[in-house]
Amino acid sequence: MKIGQQLFRTIWPVTDAALPGHYQVAIIDQTALPHAWRILTLNSVQQMVDAIRKMQVRGAPLIGAAAAYGLALASQQSSTDETLQAAASSLLASRPTAVNLRWAVERMMRELLAMPEALRCAHAWLEASRIADEDVRINQSIAQHGLALLQALAAEKPGCLNILTHCNAGWLATVDWGTALAPIYAAFDAGMDIHVWVDETRPRNQGASLTAWELQQHGVPYKVICDNAGGHLMQHGQVDCVIVGADRVSRVGDVCNKIGTYLKALAAADNQVPFYVAVPTPTIDRQLEDAIRDIPIEERPADEVHMMAGLTSAGTVEYVRVTPEGSAAANPAFDVTPARLVTSIITEHGCYAPKDLHDMLQRIDPI
Amino acid sequence: MKIGQQLFRTIWPVTDAALPGHYQVAIIDQTALPHAWRILTLNSVQQMVDAIRKMQVRGAPLIGAAAAYGLALASQQSSTDETLQAAASSLLASRPTAVNLRWAVERMMRELLAMPEALRCAHAWLEASRIADEDVRINQSIAQHGLALLQALAAEKPGCLNILTHCNAGWLATVDWGTALAPIYAAFDAGMDIHVWVDETRPRNQGASLTAWELQQHGVPYKVICDNAGGHLMQHGQVDCVIVGADRVSRVGDVCNKIGTYLKALAAADNQVPFYVAVPTPTIDRQLEDAIRDIPIEERPADEVHMMAGLTSAGTVEYVRVTPEGSAAANPAFDVTPARLVTSIITEHGCYAPKDLHDMLQRIDPI
Repeated sequence: MKIGQQLFRTIWPVTDAALPGHYQVAIIDQTALPHAWRILTLNSVQQMVDAIRKMQVRGAPLIGAAAAYGLALASQQSSTDETLQAAASSLLASRPTAVNLRWAVERMMRELLAMPEALRCAHAWLEASRIADEDVRINQSIAQHGLALLQALAAEKPGCLNILTHCNAGWLATVDWGTALAPIYAAFDAGMDIHVWVDETRPRNQGASLTAWELQQHGVPYKVICDNAGGHLMQHGQVDCVIVGADRVSRVGDVCNKIGTYLKALAAADNQVPFYVAVPTPTIDRQLEDAIRDIPIEERPADEVHMMAGLTSAGTVEYVRVTPEGSAAANPAFDVTPARLVTSIITEHGCYAPKDLHDMLQRIDPI
Repeated sequence: MKIGQQLFRTIWPVTDAALPGHYQVAIIDQTALPHAWRILTLNSVQQMVDAIRKMQVRGAPLIGAAAAYGLALASQQSSTDETLQAAASSLLASRPTAVNLRWAVERMMRELLAMPEALRCAHAWLEASRIADEDVRINQSIAQHGLALLQALAAEKPGCLNILTHCNAGWLATVDWGTALAPIYAAFDAGMDIHVWVDETRPRNQGASLTAWELQQHGVPYKVICDNAGGHLMQHGQVDCVIVGADRVSRVGDVCNKIGTYLKALAAADNQVPFYVAVPTPTIDRQLEDAIRDIPIEERPADEVHMMAGLTSAGTVEYVRVTPEGSAAANPAFDVTPARLVTSIITEHGCYAPKDLHDMLQRIDPI
């Protein structure tokens, strides 16, 4: 996507000027955004592990690609089974709950261990690039299927189309395009008159920092709002649809996503506003029976509620404390939106009502 | 209420050591909370006007009492019609939209202008104290009626009773006790096993700063949560009821309150959690037909969304910027919760379902 007038992905290989024939991996340091733009160049799998752990790269699809490139960096130093297995272990430990990370590491290791050592390094770079490219293609398909939904809404309503989104499911969370924001970029690029309400998304402010920054860089009109405001805007006809991403979707269409998504889905249903969820099909967990009962919700550190990061008047980034010293806080990171509140799930294969999800998956990949 | 082990109101007259027979007015500086505890002593109506304007005193009932004490301060310097009328004008201009402020100023002026100048000053102090005392009595009644609701809930559920509240409708917003928090203090003082979920309440963080501080000082167990978290907690049976205050209630029971209240009411209804609104009956606007249509919602400055105040590691309070420079933001301050989502309205006269509100008001004060 565009930064200024230049196109970027969130991760890409670069030739190593010091070592001909060697590559490094460039990433955008997401911990510095939105207040600073910084590209980091990584030379080793250990540096990649650190970048994942510090959330300099984040977002499930992007972490998968980052892990694949991490194994390519490892194979460049040594392609023995031992080296690669050690690299895989340390990558898996960097964000233990990330599903895409495990998937990418297993795919890479299956291929690499099956071939002679001499071929592994070249193949690792090729396979990592394939994983990255596949993510881009999936998101471009989501963009086109979502665009059709937005065009249908616009056909029934003159003037600007107002879209609300929660958290960051933009290109920063993927290799490019994003999931929830992919149809928004496609609509903007197609010349549609759109405006995005960006939920701040407390406690980590991914909306106010990352989504706002992405949209600003690409030139898409937006306003940041507090997470409290969306219901009021819907009551007054100022939201035409909601699009969010998801961390996991059950086979009946229950949606596990960033905390607060459920409240927006309730307000959307109460005001007849379409509620769309954009996800690649691998995010749909066909084993999952009852999402509210069966998904354990990560309880994150209380300090994310107490402390807030931002830019001081002196131009430095500092944490400030919002609550009284000694306060207790709770910080559940995700919630589950029941399928009955979801209008349509936008996948790379098309858009499906929750009730049609299972049949679609069976057609694509019968189990 | 208790600060440490000492009882306080939010406003009280003190004798002026320098001028025998004269009074000053003490207030708690609410702009310093929760990071500093500061009592200000005001000597003139102009100082009171400044304190209201800077929100060192805030909350509709408290502003009413503050205005009354402001006129008492004015009458101490001169009790001519001209002096009092000038004082009244500057008080009314300090927070032009505050309904209780106008009500208190008009009540004081009606009484003072009707009596000889020589009697005005003594009467002004008396009448201001009456206004303050009436607020305390109303809130004590709300506390007792709300307590009965909480006791009924506790009778059906063993263990701790979990109450969620939004914003600050505590004693800091009134002269003492508060509205939404009054039943909570009564329950705690009665020895009930309770715990309060405190919505942070972006953008001004009245929950994270003022409500958390109040509960902490009084010893009531609480946890601060992001505004996004309440729906998830309700889905998992961790909220037994919601209690909020209100800025205005329509005759059919629609509730205008701090932005985000509507989202919590939707989640409460979706999970069969009782949703209570605690208000003095003067907050019920019997002229109001359709609250969603007829209440203009104040759009506050965008900087409340962009900037966040908190305590730095150096111990100073600073504002930090959360959004990217150049971002737009929208900041509606209130929303309207439809009566269909409200279980009961707790008033000083008892608890009423929205459908019974009109009949109750007609009995108390037929119009």
